[in-house]
Amino acid sequence: MLPDAHGSPLMLVLDLTGTFAFGLSGGLAGVRARLDLYGVLVLAAVVGLAGGIIRDILLGALPPATFSDWRYLAVAALAGLTTFFFHRTIERFYRPVAVFDAAGLSLFCVTGAAKALEFNVGAVQAVLLGVITATGGGMLRDVLVREIPTVLRSELYAVPALIGASITVASSRLGYDPTAASLLAAAACFIVRLASLHFDIGLPTPPDGRGKPGE
Amino acid sequence: MLPDAHGSPLMLVLDLTGTFAFGLSGGLAGVRARLDLYGVLVLAAVVGLAGGIIRDILLGALPPATFSDWRYLAVAALAGLTTFFFHRTIERFYRPVAVFDAAGLSLFCVTGAAKALEFNVGAVQAVLLGVITATGGGMLRDVLVREIPTVLRSELYAVPALIGASITVASSRLGYDPTAASLLAAAACFIVRLASLHFDIGLPTPPDGRGKPGE
Amino acid sequence: MLPDAHGSPLMLVLDLTGTFAFGLSGGLAGVRARLDLYGVLVLAAVVGLAGGIIRDILLGALPPATFSDWRYLAVAALAGLTTFFFHRTIERFYRPVAVFDAAGLSLFCVTGAAKALEFNVGAVQAVLLGVITATGGGMLRDVLVREIPTVLRSELYAVPALIGASITVASSRLGYDPTAASLLAAAACFIVRLASLHFDIGLPTPPDGRGKPGE
Repeated sequence: MLPDAHGSPLMLVLDLTGTFAFGLSGGLAGVRARLDLYGVLVLAAVVGLAGGIIRDILLGALPPATFSDWRYLAVAALAGLTTFFFHRTIERFYRPVAVFDAAGLSLFCVTGAAKALEFNVGAVQAVLLGVITATGGGMLRDVLVREIPTVLRSELYAVPALIGASITVASSRLGYDPTAASLLAAAACFIVRLASLHFDIGLPTPPDGRGKPGE
Repeated sequence: MLPDAHGSPLMLVLDLTGTFAFGLSGGLAGVRARLDLYGVLVLAAVVGLAGGIIRDILLGALPPATFSDWRYLAVAALAGLTTFFFHRTIERFYRPVAVFDAAGLSLFCVTGAAKALEFNVGAVQAVLLGVITATGGGMLRDVLVREIPTVLRSELYAVPALIGASITVASSRLGYDPTAASLLAAAACFIVRLASLHFDIGLPTPPDGRGKPGE
Repeated sequence: MLPDAHGSPLMLVLDLTGTFAFGLSGGLAGVRARLDLYGVLVLAAVVGLAGGIIRDILLGALPPATFSDWRYLAVAALAGLTTFFFHRTIERFYRPVAVFDAAGLSLFCVTGAAKALEFNVGAVQAVLLGVITATGGGMLRDVLVREIPTVLRSELYAVPALIGASITVASSRLGYDPTAASLLAAAACFIVRLASLHFDIGLPTPPDGRGKPGE
């Protein structure tokens, strides 16, 4: 039997679901950037797996779970193949990339923070690792297709992840039931993310920050 | 005496040759992007060393062999200096970047997979690490000079590496002679890569994937 | 009491000061690229912390000191908030990004090399780790805002870091007083960096390297 990467079956299921959701979002980005089959698979894998890999590198938990456990690789590959062959069907749904991405974000901020807590890092570090796990894959995706990462520019993207990771860490410290807390935290992140998209809410830009060029 | 990074003298020779070949390819890319001396050296080092560094980070084999063993650094620096001073001579040959790059690809997919096997990861992971070792440096090079990585877009680039790494892993599982298997695997990758360039063979792009924009 | 990340209080002070200086430089770059609050904070953190994180990953010193020690995170966040709210005031000074960046460069090449020496790597590797610590954050910053890293293209940027790191390693080998040597090394780097900016000195580009395109 394979060891559960995150200690509990619930975390594993959330993590694999997040990998698939992010994998779809990455694969679709690859299709749009007109990459070939390999490129689409790599983008699916990068978005689905890189956040967790960065987290495990920072925790010193090497080799990373998402790399040594074949189920993550299989799920990411499946997501890539799905977008490669069925991207037209997927895109018929309402804002598919955004919704899958929000799902991945919500699941990874929870599982990332939960794994960090198992490694006994501080509360602030656990929250940050949740955010890094959730946003790392998407940032790498944007760098690879040569865009300034969306998460840095606009929209509430990191904030929902921050909320989800904070709920996870706080409930763990308060001794609440992890299953209920994880689902609540993921739901909170998901709702805030979709609401921010729907109502077009963003973070403030710098006061007077029209970015006067010149040193 | 320095320890051999990959357990056998053959692997070390292949690895250093691959570092030099990739270093030339990186240095030439730096010359073309009009970088200065430091930039050319860094690009040579990135393409020559980064694949192996990423592999060793993922394996938890820290510090990375390509960093702690001075011979890798020396070979990468030598490749960078060679391209800096003699790029005009080098470019007189037929498609020099492509040929050096194919050589590096062929050698690294073999040594990357072989090193992964020594760390007792699964067969799929060993093949993947071979591909990552072979293609990681080139991807980073493209990101640094601000291009969408070629490997994601067109041509058979990862596929030859996949073939070479798979032959390496399969022969090891079947107990074949590692020296013969390594050379065969590298030759197979090299031939497929150059043939794909010559006949302009690529991977399929997504069906109907003209990349309709819009969410 | 928290452990000192670099063994000595002097190193810690230099390291935190460097983090703040680089954080200001990163935050200002974020303001100019019109990122939002989160983007400005991330850029400040990336430039302030990433060099040290890359160094610690390469040394296998995980989790990285700059991540597990909350003071680094707090200082980087403070630098980000400072640039977000007060960027107009800061930019009134003469070339603020360049000066803060030079300060970060000077401090990190010293602390990076000093930490590497504690891990008993070779002298060349210690110098290189000093340069990587000093220049890694800025390279990542340029990649994120989609520019070819300045350090690769023009100006004396890595050379001053090389000088500072070399002085640090050489004095340590010669048994000189580390406090005096560190301050001297940082000052040398700082002066060379600012002088190169003032007199517009750069590294040579490749001979005839007008970058003839075409393979």
